Amino acid sequence: MSQTIVIVGAVALGPKAACRFKRLEPGSRVIMIDQGSMISYGGCGIPYYISGDVSDPDQLQSTSFHMLRDARFFKEAKGIEVMTETRATAIDREGKLLRVIDLKTGKEGGIAYDQLVLATGSRPRRLPIPGAELEGVFTVSSLDEAVRIKARIAEGQVGKAVVIGAGAIGLEMAEAMSDLWGIETTVVEVQDQILPHIVSPTLARMAQRHMEESGVAFQMGEEVRRIEGEGCVERVLTGQGALEADLVVMAVGVTPNVDLAREAGLAVSERGAIMVNTRMQTSDPSIYAGGDCVEIPNLITGKPGYWPLGSLANRQGRVVGTNLAGGRAEFEGAVGSFVVKLFDMSVASSGLSLSVARREGFDAVSTFVVQFDRAHFYPEKDLLYLELVVEKGTRRVLGIQGIGNKGDGLLARISAVAAILKHRPTTADVSNMELPYSPPFSSAMDVLNALGNAAENLLDGKNRVMDVDQFDEWWNHRENGKTFFMDCRNWGNAEAYVKKYPEHWKSIPQDELRKRLSEVPQDKNIVLICNTGVRSYEAQVFLDEMGFHNTFNLQGGMAAVKKWPGDL
Amino acid sequence: MSQTIVIVGAVALGPKAACRFKRLEPGSRVIMIDQGSMISYGGCGIPYYISGDVSDPDQLQSTSFHMLRDARFFKEAKGIEVMTETRATAIDREGKLLRVIDLKTGKEGGIAYDQLVLATGSRPRRLPIPGAELEGVFTVSSLDEAVRIKARIAEGQVGKAVVIGAGAIGLEMAEAMSDLWGIETTVVEVQDQILPHIVSPTLARMAQRHMEESGVAFQMGEEVRRIEGEGCVERVLTGQGALEADLVVMAVGVTPNVDLAREAGLAVSERGAIMVNTRMQTSDPSIYAGGDCVEIPNLITGKPGYWPLGSLANRQGRVVGTNLAGGRAEFEGAVGSFVVKLFDMSVASSGLSLSVARREGFDAVSTFVVQFDRAHFYPEKDLLYLELVVEKGTRRVLGIQGIGNKGDGLLARISAVAAILKHRPTTADVSNMELPYSPPFSSAMDVLNALGNAAENLLDGKNRVMDVDQFDEWWNHRENGKTFFMDCRNWGNAEAYVKKYPEHWKSIPQDELRKRLSEVPQDKNIVLICNTGVRSYEAQVFLDEMGFHNTFNLQGGMAAVKKWPGDL
Repeated sequence: MSQTIVIVGAVALGPKAACRFKRLEPGSRVIMIDQGSMISYGGCGIPYYISGDVSDPDQLQSTSFHMLRDARFFKEAKGIEVMTETRATAIDREGKLLRVIDLKTGKEGGIAYDQLVLATGSRPRRLPIPGAELEGVFTVSSLDEAVRIKARIAEGQVGKAVVIGAGAIGLEMAEAMSDLWGIETTVVEVQDQILPHIVSPTLARMAQRHMEESGVAFQMGEEVRRIEGEGCVERVLTGQGALEADLVVMAVGVTPNVDLAREAGLAVSERGAIMVNTRMQTSDPSIYAGGDCVEIPNLITGKPGYWPLGSLANRQGRVVGTNLAGGRAEFEGAVGSFVVKLFDMSVASSGLSLSVARREGFDAVSTFVVQFDRAHFYPEKDLLYLELVVEKGTRRVLGIQGIGNKGDGLLARISAVAAILKHRPTTADVSNMELPYSPPFSSAMDVLNALGNAAENLLDGKNRVMDVDQFDEWWNHRENGKTFFMDCRNWGNAEAYVKKYPEHWKSIPQDELRKRLSEVPQDKNIVLICNTGVRSYEAQVFLDEMGFHNTFNLQGGMAAVKKWPGDL
Repeated sequence: MSQTIVIVGAVALGPKAACRFKRLEPGSRVIMIDQGSMISYGGCGIPYYISGDVSDPDQLQSTSFHMLRDARFFKEAKGIEVMTETRATAIDREGKLLRVIDLKTGKEGGIAYDQLVLATGSRPRRLPIPGAELEGVFTVSSLDEAVRIKARIAEGQVGKAVVIGAGAIGLEMAEAMSDLWGIETTVVEVQDQILPHIVSPTLARMAQRHMEESGVAFQMGEEVRRIEGEGCVERVLTGQGALEADLVVMAVGVTPNVDLAREAGLAVSERGAIMVNTRMQTSDPSIYAGGDCVEIPNLITGKPGYWPLGSLANRQGRVVGTNLAGGRAEFEGAVGSFVVKLFDMSVASSGLSLSVARREGFDAVSTFVVQFDRAHFYPEKDLLYLELVVEKGTRRVLGIQGIGNKGDGLLARISAVAAILKHRPTTADVSNMELPYSPPFSSAMDVLNALGNAAENLLDGKNRVMDVDQFDEWWNHRENGKTFFMDCRNWGNAEAYVKKYPEHWKSIPQDELRKRLSEVPQDKNIVLICNTGVRSYEAQVFLDEMGFHNTFNLQGGMAAVKKWPGDL
């Protein structure tokens, strides 16, 4: 039985659903419309086009075999009809007719459908501040807009730029402009950390420091009050004064495009996203939706979640395509997974950060571990910094976040946890997580296993930890004499610190602690420090046995301190 | 309540169990004995010590903070007593006494225990062939032996070497000798593929080709009949004649060391491994065991499994340590995960390969996908070759294998599947696998998702595939005129092949197929070829609709052909 499928929106989900359906039902007709002129491009690649890593916008619109995914391609290679620069204006659900207008000619018309797909996506939020509409103020909304941003840069018109918003896209854009073009770039973020809600303040501070060292400036906890300029942007005003800017990028989140759905009477959530079941059907069974315009279950909280990600859109697109052809595919939801490259660093996350977990009502704690990504005796290696968020009591793992170098070692660990999060893992599942092992790739006790172990020790009350931010505060108040900073490493590691801070930095190597116990004061807080937190934990266990319970193990040890702002 | 724990074996599991227990019960006594002089070393690092990547054997015996894990270290840093060069000779279970002999003095004695841990490990198999005991014939059994191997090499005594066995250790040793030392190395393997049972013959052949291009020679399907030499090894005799050799490494598997357990009446399996429950307890509840001397459940087959891996030993060690202290930790089993670096290539696996799955009684098939490891428009990228083994009917995923470059991109994908294998995933779980996404790390539709999709299409009968080995055979018989080799790529890709093989290589780009259908013969087998198998699949779907059902989609496309031996 031949049918007609009409798809509104031809980026990510739309084309994926169209192609999947067409392969399953080659005899049916598929019509895909889009209000833009360029379709089926990889929007996530825009920062790499801006930076110059991707030289031509066509590359973002091409297949892996270098064919441009334009209307002709969809017609000839896929048998799919595409109408660009065509806007859907209304859905006549009774009559199964999509009303459209041709933006080139202004001509209106209707397209009959048997089943309809809404892939209307999202649009970037634009702050309602004076000057937001000035020339030179951009969002990262479309390939067209990206072309205009890059043209300005390439013409040499941009010496200074301001990025508003320190989410992933804002930071990618800051890197793109700063790194290859040498543009003086400042990121202004209203929250007091970068990547808010995604990673902990501690990891965020480390990543921010890396970006600062790479040349990007930051104003944190600052609102942009207005943007000024004569015709074109010239400066951005924040609470700290004026920032000169030849270009402004607003990257302050997105809003789902649901007007068409809402006006047709389809169920739209409070958040303003189209509601779908696990088959990606809207409240009208003849109408599917997916991608940035829908919400899907958060598999950790059980509540609706919203993640405008190209990866989810593509996978949902295949589910939609299968179901359009009468299949029974399901998209059960997501746990929320994320990775971003920031210069030579990667930051990744899956599931809930500690602050989000607590906001969602979990009685949660987190633990922090630093360890090499491969066998410590293998010559090429690097440190991974991982944080695990767990629920007390149940020991359920709620999320994982981390930073690493720009290789895929971090991705491997976050992916493994991402894969099991929907199965409600406990700390034991991470402790015993089975990763492929050989020295060039991992450790016999991998950093992920160590992370699970540390979480268990924390929940068992065996490891009383201190974060690097708290350490920093106590160190800054070291003159109050309340704290004994004890370096548990061997003398070779401790020496430089003892010489620099003879009054405050004490060296008692962990393996000498049994003999030198008398040097440990009874009446102070004792901060235990080693390279990564392993020997200091060992020292803590021993001191506990000896009756010294006022000890704090610095999580991540000096490896964490070195990533932290400051010059200790 | 203080107790005495005695641990037999001080590599991997033994020290881990000892340290974990001691941290939980600092007041108890732990005695660890070992018949060797060097303890607690990373045996998996031996090939990297041989190669020179690790310069000193001490590095394999050191902590990540460069402390030598010797008896003194365990005493002072951990509070654990260690007796080296001491062999356990018998267990008096009734009297809870371990009988030992001091190998230095010959003095016998007994150590009373409350709980005992057997970490007796395994020993390398030595082939029962003439000459196996000649000087210069080694196994990879211990750090002592590694030191002797490297001494011979470093003294310049080794120009040619033979490795018997093409498992992971054999291949790592072959690389170690060939790459940095320039030793002419030949690997002799009795099976007809490298990494037998671990990856498919197809992936094995690709990896073998890479090693051959890197200078290692292979004799496959060959038995070593004898080793000859005057005092010292001079040659190895196989069915193909004599191979000159100054050094021979036997890497033909290991045998669990269970004599002590067997003689004490503990349950030992048919395979010859100690049987333990999920708490790692032997048939005597006061005696725990783990590591290379035990078998544990295979979480895919439900049968006992045997994996002599340092990673499993370490994780089991922590479980043992917890339980010795009265905890309730469990080690539920493993799915079998593996990774090896071979020059610039990584090969990894988790779960069952196709041949093992079938041997275990599963009605299994596999699907093969080649795709970039990150967004195809991202400048730095490389191909990943993945194979998914699935059960027909249930669509259960039984295993995954792959090859990639020596980065961690392959590890990320294999780890994610390894993590879920115990949850009995289906192809839909891989299709919808949620991996962190951004262009520098993955694709919106990641290679892993594409692999799940391909498996579904295969099981649905939508994608009728051909492996590269079958393609190779048909191509070699191309003169019989039975096959139409159709290149679905654009002319630019196909041109060179058409010019070289004008009679046999036909170019019909997939997007021109609708117009050029008359060029497709009705009476031949049609092999559809593109870069990776995506466009050829598209062509197959279209040809099906047009009534051409005799089509075969070359899985992995030309990317697979290029990894295959031969010069097509």
